[in-house]
Amino acid sequence: MAKKKQTIVGNMLIAQSGGPTAVINQSLVGAVLQAKKHKEIKKIYGALHGIQGILNEDLIDLGRETVETLKAVAQTPSSALGSVRKKPTPADCEQIFTKLQKYGVRYFFYIGGNDSAETAHIINEEAKKAGYELHCFHIPKTIDNDLRENDHTPGFASGAKFVAQAFMGDDLDNAALPGVKINVVMGRHAGFLTAASALARTYPGAGPHLIYLPERPFDLKKFPQQVKAMVAQHGRCIVAVSEGISDASGQAIAASFTKEVDSHGNVQLSGSGALGDSLANIIKAETGITRVRADTFGYLQRSFPGVVAANDAKVAFAVGREAVKYATSGDVDGSVAIRRKKGKKYQVYFERVELRSVAKETRHMPDAFIAANGCDVTKAFIDYAAPIVGPLPKIGRFKRVKVKK
Amino acid sequence: MAKKKQTIVGNMLIAQSGGPTAVINQSLVGAVLQAKKHKEIKKIYGALHGIQGILNEDLIDLGRETVETLKAVAQTPSSALGSVRKKPTPADCEQIFTKLQKYGVRYFFYIGGNDSAETAHIINEEAKKAGYELHCFHIPKTIDNDLRENDHTPGFASGAKFVAQAFMGDDLDNAALPGVKINVVMGRHAGFLTAASALARTYPGAGPHLIYLPERPFDLKKFPQQVKAMVAQHGRCIVAVSEGISDASGQAIAASFTKEVDSHGNVQLSGSGALGDSLANIIKAETGITRVRADTFGYLQRSFPGVVAANDAKVAFAVGREAVKYATSGDVDGSVAIRRKKGKKYQVYFERVELRSVAKETRHMPDAFIAANGCDVTKAFIDYAAPIVGPLPKIGRFKRVKVKK
Repeated sequence: MAKKKQTIVGNMLIAQSGGPTAVINQSLVGAVLQAKKHKEIKKIYGALHGIQGILNEDLIDLGRETVETLKAVAQTPSSALGSVRKKPTPADCEQIFTKLQKYGVRYFFYIGGNDSAETAHIINEEAKKAGYELHCFHIPKTIDNDLRENDHTPGFASGAKFVAQAFMGDDLDNAALPGVKINVVMGRHAGFLTAASALARTYPGAGPHLIYLPERPFDLKKFPQQVKAMVAQHGRCIVAVSEGISDASGQAIAASFTKEVDSHGNVQLSGSGALGDSLANIIKAETGITRVRADTFGYLQRSFPGVVAANDAKVAFAVGREAVKYATSGDVDGSVAIRRKKGKKYQVYFERVELRSVAKETRHMPDAFIAANGCDVTKAFIDYAAPIVGPLPKIGRFKRVKVKK
Repeated sequence: MAKKKQTIVGNMLIAQSGGPTAVINQSLVGAVLQAKKHKEIKKIYGALHGIQGILNEDLIDLGRETVETLKAVAQTPSSALGSVRKKPTPADCEQIFTKLQKYGVRYFFYIGGNDSAETAHIINEEAKKAGYELHCFHIPKTIDNDLRENDHTPGFASGAKFVAQAFMGDDLDNAALPGVKINVVMGRHAGFLTAASALARTYPGAGPHLIYLPERPFDLKKFPQQVKAMVAQHGRCIVAVSEGISDASGQAIAASFTKEVDSHGNVQLSGSGALGDSLANIIKAETGITRVRADTFGYLQRSFPGVVAANDAKVAFAVGREAVKYATSGDVDGSVAIRRKKGKKYQVYFERVELRSVAKETRHMPDAFIAANGCDVTKAFIDYAAPIVGPLPKIGRFKRVKVKK
């Protein structure tokens, strides 16, 4: 892995994997535009639907796209190359490596989460075994913000901005027509996105009044009491619930309310209102409160055009660009990690890290970000998240000078 | 109702009713800022939570709010004075009239839908019976776009913009990870908001591929076949469903899937994922398609800060302003109707209409806006709606030049 001045000449292949985000195309375009600057990179291939597209040889020639189109795609949410949920078997990885050889690919980039880093890692090991020089890079993305080595991940800030804005509006809606409102937010194992709902609190008494994260056991018995206490205090209660909340034994709460499973055989959390509806019914039954509503934000959180955090777009573009820079700096492989400079101002820098260091395991909300009562976040979380998400819409409120009766 | 040059001197009271919108505060502030210009209007009271606030004498002094605050509130979604779902009884209306007299109110403005117009109408009749000069105006608002006399209603364009953007993003998400996606949109009796999903189609093959409106009977037996046909054609299918779809007998489809009722005793449509989840389960069971997801957009459609149609904000402000102008032009009452000039350019003007002409009954999607097959909209609808909603985010797409296998 020693650096050399001359890098190998060959083709490049890039693909996208896992759940789309609002900025995953920034990373794609960041990588493609950078690749165009390097003479050692010849053809720039895009595989359709991730590794499935490599296995099927469904490739497109990204070198034939205009800069204008590339820039327009960068600003468009969802994976422009298509995505895939498939976790490759060792046999698949062998196959993929064969295809990369067939198409003369020496530069391989895979945009995705920790599963994608793992896939890139295995393919890279195949190449090493075969003595084939492959410059193999994982480019981070996930709205869940659960990648190790990264201060935060591309896609998270825009998802968090959507969640925060949704809660800002929903809080005002609920203040106008008071009741209990439960909003279910994405995040199977990590609570960062649900926690971002706390950024919506712009005035004293603003919701969310309760925040339930997958990092703390959810107690179905305590839940109605906690809601009742907030209603007593505020006359209403906004609840942020992660779709991945689990009981003390680690069993997903959603599993008690739905039998649907996803392509990995896990209980289907997104694309269903079952968890929110069931929690709402429990509140109605246990507290006697009549106006109880639930919304599940669903796929809008990751693909809503027009709600993009400005820094997120920049950083997502940069990790794509940096991956190509690293890959052309010698016979190297790895992932691009986002580091953050200390201080209130949002400033990031990038580092190459080993593929295995971001692969497989997920990062969780650190204890310092979770309130002692287990159903709120701390100031430390706000200090961490607010600069990442950036400015939110301003909320105007009356001072409400009462007229004497 | 003859016009006089001098109008009566007295206080003003304004209130908001029904479901909040993204621009209902524009109407409130438009009225308040205009009222400040009229010497005959003394105090400017706001009632908290609509007629409930009048009955309870929960009034605030809007004259004590700064112009800066008023302008900030105008740009904030949801009813800043609070709202109410209460339909007053005749006895309530008598009571309300007594309170208006007690507080020296000669100018009364009620912002809301057709129920609010009806309330204003009854209160106005009480005043007439008592020989009390009350300048009583209804100010239109509803995301449902279902008020008679109006080309379109304040709040609709912003709700439609949210729906269109949501479908644009969700279509790209579904193109990346293909399957069947069902999105449930607000609208109990009128399909305008669901129809606005069609504005999301910016390229050939884009979703929504099926649009189900309350104006046409929904056939649970045909539904899986229609979805299957679209999947055969597009490899995927995005479905827009109005929460208010009903069967041939007029029974709400949602009623078969939930027992929850709202404050009017109607089946609870919003704040529940039951309809979408049930339709998704039917598709899974009847077609064998495995990736079927449903999202219910819920309250975000009406209160999401940052997604506001520019024309909607202007028109909402204008109807508040115009109501005060009419009310101070003589001993008049009525509602402000939005008319539209012919032509592609979006241009509106306002007319005073009788309260009873917008009260009670709702407006539906005209037949000319609904496709013959009953599950799509026509070009006439797009021509009607696109200028109202205004520009949407641009979508970038690759031309996808295939690499030879």
